[in-house]
Amino acid sequence: MEKALLVFQTDFTYKEGAVAAMYGVVKSVDRQLEIIDATHEIPQYDTWSASYRLHQYMRFWPKGTVFVSVVDPGVGTARRACVALSNDGYYIVTPDNGTLTHIKNGVGIKEVRVIDETVNRLVRDDNKHVSIFHGRDLFGYCAARLASGIISFEEVGKTYPIEEIIEHPIIKPQTISNGIEGIFEINDPNFGNLWTNIPLDLFEKAGFHHGDRIRTVIFFKDKKIFDEVIPYFSSFGMAENHQVMIYNNELNHIALAETVGNLCQNYGLGYGADYKVRFTN
Amino acid sequence: MEKALLVFQTDFTYKEGAVAAMYGVVKSVDRQLEIIDATHEIPQYDTWSASYRLHQYMRFWPKGTVFVSVVDPGVGTARRACVALSNDGYYIVTPDNGTLTHIKNGVGIKEVRVIDETVNRLVRDDNKHVSIFHGRDLFGYCAARLASGIISFEEVGKTYPIEEIIEHPIIKPQTISNGIEGIFEINDPNFGNLWTNIPLDLFEKAGFHHGDRIRTVIFFKDKKIFDEVIPYFSSFGMAENHQVMIYNNELNHIALAETVGNLCQNYGLGYGADYKVRFTN
Amino acid sequence: MEKALLVFQTDFTYKEGAVAAMYGVVKSVDRQLEIIDATHEIPQYDTWSASYRLHQYMRFWPKGTVFVSVVDPGVGTARRACVALSNDGYYIVTPDNGTLTHIKNGVGIKEVRVIDETVNRLVRDDNKHVSIFHGRDLFGYCAARLASGIISFEEVGKTYPIEEIIEHPIIKPQTISNGIEGIFEINDPNFGNLWTNIPLDLFEKAGFHHGDRIRTVIFFKDKKIFDEVIPYFSSFGMAENHQVMIYNNELNHIALAETVGNLCQNYGLGYGADYKVRFTN
Repeated sequence: MEKALLVFQTDFTYKEGAVAAMYGVVKSVDRQLEIIDATHEIPQYDTWSASYRLHQYMRFWPKGTVFVSVVDPGVGTARRACVALSNDGYYIVTPDNGTLTHIKNGVGIKEVRVIDETVNRLVRDDNKHVSIFHGRDLFGYCAARLASGIISFEEVGKTYPIEEIIEHPIIKPQTISNGIEGIFEINDPNFGNLWTNIPLDLFEKAGFHHGDRIRTVIFFKDKKIFDEVIPYFSSFGMAENHQVMIYNNELNHIALAETVGNLCQNYGLGYGADYKVRFTN
Repeated sequence: MEKALLVFQTDFTYKEGAVAAMYGVVKSVDRQLEIIDATHEIPQYDTWSASYRLHQYMRFWPKGTVFVSVVDPGVGTARRACVALSNDGYYIVTPDNGTLTHIKNGVGIKEVRVIDETVNRLVRDDNKHVSIFHGRDLFGYCAARLASGIISFEEVGKTYPIEEIIEHPIIKPQTISNGIEGIFEINDPNFGNLWTNIPLDLFEKAGFHHGDRIRTVIFFKDKKIFDEVIPYFSSFGMAENHQVMIYNNELNHIALAETVGNLCQNYGLGYGADYKVRFTN
Repeated sequence: MEKALLVFQTDFTYKEGAVAAMYGVVKSVDRQLEIIDATHEIPQYDTWSASYRLHQYMRFWPKGTVFVSVVDPGVGTARRACVALSNDGYYIVTPDNGTLTHIKNGVGIKEVRVIDETVNRLVRDDNKHVSIFHGRDLFGYCAARLASGIISFEEVGKTYPIEEIIEHPIIKPQTISNGIEGIFEINDPNFGNLWTNIPLDLFEKAGFHHGDRIRTVIFFKDKKIFDEVIPYFSSFGMAENHQVMIYNNELNHIALAETVGNLCQNYGLGYGADYKVRFTN
């Protein structure tokens, strides 16, 4: 049987040897396992971003892929270490700390199991007193055993109720009389674009179409910080350089960009519940 | 038949989930494909650097390797999406936007084809309105199909004349009465070294040899900004720390370094047509 | 016979094409070789960090893995290029410049061989005058030949005495009347934690246990720069945010962290022989 792919995301970065130690454990479990980096640059301790990134890329992978997410500010506390099986057939090995928010609220979770540390934790002479590196000793090790078929999903550990999975609050967009409003729920930290929580279909139902020029008002903690009429384009190449524009992002959500520029930096904008955006006719 | 290697370079960085989504598509086309990162840290929108980096490393790979370059400021415009076959037997999947400059002018391009989006673009329920992520939906997907043998090079799409490939201007070095002059055409952004457009053989024909001390004058927009007599060494270890020196770089071009230092930062230097360098006896 | 894994660490970063050229050479030696990044973000020229990182992750890999470390400020000088075999069965391909310090002093080195450049250096028309990129032309090439079985360890080149291997000085911790003192020997540059040279067992023998509150004094060049009573916890999740705490790190050494914060940055601390730390009852 073909072994499952292992895809990792963490907030470890590659600045030191943590990723290499974790991957060494995986390869020591099973030399044949294929390891792929999703990213090791999740913002530190940011379980919201960890959750969003899984939502962003998970669906594009072959069914059965095992995703490992280690953004774990609560390592060493009572937070559960778990493996979730999504309704669309992926495994996610992660601390249960909000990282499953988008998967649970999106495609949904079919079953979740707490990792049984008595069998699925690496114990060696040189790590038995170590409580701070679950990426290496617990999540990576357990995921490798699952992906290689050494253990079945059932052998991860006992199930627990899906309702008990820890979630971050998700804010929904609202249709208003002459438009729609939502929040920036995440950014593209490389290009500086901001992604709203407004899906394309709702935006179109609110009466907006490609080519429209749309009044866009942004509030930070209810204070207006941006108020301009900007175009809604299908792609960046249609705008002039440094023009602020609206577009449909890769996940079919409405987003804002400064073309060939960095909107977040140049306009002092960010994401989260405090950043509201309103589009009106 | 052995499948071709897939080597990727982009300006996406690993700060978010774009690379992971693109690689998921590749693995969903064919689980057996081997993906290798060339780099995801090309400077944003910098198709000159994208072109130079291909030139820097492509030749060292096995023949038949498929390179994917996604530095694409013009996504969504009329710029072509293409696959080029180089004279030395490599495939390059890229927007035709200057990224092929060095390969075209160096080893040369044998044939170029526009990607037929009616067959070689990924269409799913959740991406059919997405126009902004050609890395995932077009370049990565088409490259995976080519590397796995699902499509032949002919099935990428129709050929177009090689002369139509978009090029950046390439500036040639000039031999002068008592030396040679050129430009800095790229840097090593990690160590801060500057690479000229002067090949080793021309430099030697101009009368320079290892061990020489050479007057080196640098101009920015015709204003002299550096004028020193510096040594020409075969390697960094021969210089004192922080000594500015001339060397023959990994591509057999003449280059400048501050040993165990950062020449670009510490001397305020950069690259491009505005940075001229003159070596004289 | 299964081919050895190849694990790379350098100070090249991914900002340009050096890693891609080096990996291309490996794949041209043998398409079947599996390449894994340990890290390409070792601090520039820092052979101490290179040595420490090997020590941090090497033991977790399958026996026989070939590690390649290219942090090489002395490239082009008389420093040896070598392959060492550790007592626990790993190969390390590296300049002999201090990078083997921790392996030699820890698990120990069984045998070391100088790379015979007449057979184990890549020679092509386009690199025969290149003296500055041993990562691509020497270390990567030789390591690929060794990992693929093209050459045996004996065919790397001649042995030389293990005592001749270059070492950095290693400072030992000292038990004092009412506690223990040592230095910060490395940091975690991502999270900003500081790792001492004091092993867990010595710390416990000095009378300290989880839950204790311990007076911790830090000196920089014998000047006191930190003096607080802080808790010794088994993991980060037990502390309040931004609390400075002592913990047992992933290598069973005593370490300091600012929980969900960056101790190095926020307290102006670093590592090296100048940073002494004293724990007393």
